[in-house]
Parts: sequence; structure tokens; C-alpha cells
Amino acid sequence: MALHTREAKLDLVTKSIKHFPDFPSKGILFRDICPILKDPGALTAVIDLFEEHVRQTHPQVELIVGLDARGFLFGPLLAQRLGVGFVLVRKKGKLPGPTVSVAYKLEYGEAAVEVQEDAVAPGEKVLLIDDLLATGGTMYAACELMKKQNAEVMGCMVVIELKELNGVEKLKPNTLFSLVQY
Amino acid sequence: MALHTREAKLDLVTKSIKHFPDFPSKGILFRDICPILKDPGALTAVIDLFEEHVRQTHPQVELIVGLDARGFLFGPLLAQRLGVGFVLVRKKGKLPGPTVSVAYKLEYGEAAVEVQEDAVAPGEKVLLIDDLLATGGTMYAACELMKKQNAEVMGCMVVIELKELNGVEKLKPNTLFSLVQY
Repeated sequence: MALHTREAKLDLVTKSIKHFPDFPSKGILFRDICPILKDPGALTAVIDLFEEHVRQTHPQVELIVGLDARGFLFGPLLAQRLGVGFVLVRKKGKLPGPTVSVAYKLEYGEAAVEVQEDAVAPGEKVLLIDDLLATGGTMYAACELMKKQNAEVMGCMVVIELKELNGVEKLKPNTLFSLVQY
Repeated sequence: MALHTREAKLDLVTKSIKHFPDFPSKGILFRDICPILKDPGALTAVIDLFEEHVRQTHPQVELIVGLDARGFLFGPLLAQRLGVGFVLVRKKGKLPGPTVSVAYKLEYGEAAVEVQEDAVAPGEKVLLIDDLLATGGTMYAACELMKKQNAEVMGCMVVIELKELNGVEKLKPNTLFSLVQY
């Protein structure tokens, strides 16, 4: 059954998200997008909603850039809908050939995101995608990575935004579009 | 431009694969699928070829099961084409809630693949997907994981098969479908 209104699609997506207390560690309420993938109608709804947003606000987008690993679940689907390419941003050491990277801080220690040097051309208009925005550290580093390659970051998109962690502030001046907020 | 023949699609996919000697370590020739994702026509061709194979040989399939992380790039696209759900097989510790896992040997040490306990129902007909088959260790463990959940494994699919590593032998009695062989 195809869903025809934005409200019905959002409702299906929201109902499909599961909530797991104390994962991956005590005090964290984990929001799980796996049931969205399991339900073809819910996954179609997610991609419909992203596509509608992009066509209305960023019709000039030239590339979808997805974050390792759950951004890979949604990014290629959206890119195919829009008829544009998909680029992988990965954890350090996973991509072959010349790469560029941006380091960022974790609660304990440091991590880095990486992209192939020739994946994005100067001036290319990109949208970044992931499943969820928490503190925004990884997404911000991915935006910085795109800017290092002189790409034009048009915005960031996630299925779920954890508003109390205020990642949207950390992302500035980059903008965020989210489907479901907690 | 839509490609109409199987040969033209395979040719585009093959030409899109890049080859990096000595990655991730000396003596390894890495086959890189990133350029396929970057080219919307090549990605469409991959999914067309997988879809054609499934409709001809396993039209009863009920779930596509994808391996962390590059199986996530192709699996949801194929699942959407077929109108079925997608299930994530992940490295240990990444999935919330009750999970089941299967351990397997690496060159040095051991790893494990994991799935959520309720992701696959007994008797469900599943196809497994990843970007590449090398020695077949991870893919075989994922098949064992599905059998542990009493799912019916109809086969495994990859974009690239490294024939000299003979992963197809390791996978038996599970079958393999690959688009490009080296």
C-alpha cells in the first residue's frame, strides 16, 4: 500500500523506530532504525521524504555523501532517486588510493573520517546523509572534509535527530534536515 | 542513458571497478567498488543485474540480508526493487536488543557476525549480499547465522568474486552468484 501524505509517511517511519535503554552503554537510550529497513513500505517512506525535501530545497544537488556505516543504508537509495552519484565517507584506513581525512574528538580519544581524494570535485554541490545525529561530531568532521575538497555543502540529512544533544548547534553554519526528533 | 542489454550493463560495471595494488597491505590487489556508487548509471546496472538474477532463480525470496558495511550499499536498493525487507548482519556489539552471533576465524584471531534475534523468522527465504567474496569466511559465517535462526538460505550474491581464493568452495552447500570475476 503506497502512502500518499507526508503525515502518513512520517507516522509509519516514527512507529518503525525501536528504542533500547542502556545500549551501547548504561544511560544511553538507543534509537534503532533496523525495523525501517525490514519494512519495505517504511524504507520507501524515508526515501520519499528525503527526496521531497531535496527537490524542494536543494534541486541543484550533484552528489549524496553518506557516513560509514548506517549512512550507507539510505544514501545510495536517495542518490538513485535523484539520479546523482553517491560518495562514501569512511573511518580512517578503509578506503584505497589517495585519501584526505579530518580528525575529530571523541569522548575518549580521537577518530578521523576519510574520503578518496578524487571522489568530490571543487565546487560540487553535496548533501550529507546519516541515520542519526547525536552530538554531531562525526557529521561536522564530514562537512569539514567536504570543504577541504572545496565542495559546496548544501546541508546534512538524518532520519533521527537527538535534540537534547544539540548537534545542530555544533554543525553550524551547516544546516540539518531530520525526519524524526527526540 | 538506460542500458538495455545484460552485456552492456556488465561492461559498465566492470569498467567502473578500480584496482589498487598493495592495499590494505603489501601483496593484496584491492578491487574498489566506490566508482560504481559514484556513477548512477553503473549503480543502476548492478541492481538491474542482481534483480534479473533473483527474479529468474529465486522469485520466492522474502528478505535480503546484507553484510556490514559494503553490503549495506547494495542490499537496500535490491530489496526495494524486489519489494522485500532488508536485514543487517553486523560485526559483534553493533546491534541493540537480543542478538545471535556466529564466530569465525581470521588470519590472526577471530571475529563474529551478529543479527537481531527477531530479524529473521523460521522458514523465511533469504538471499545474502556483499560487495565482494574473497576467502568467504564472513559470508559463510553469515549463512550459518541465518541457519541458526532456521531461515532458508537461497544463495549468496556479490558484485566481485576473487576466484583464486576459492571462496565458493568454502561457502558450500550455499551457492554464489557474482557479477564480475577476477
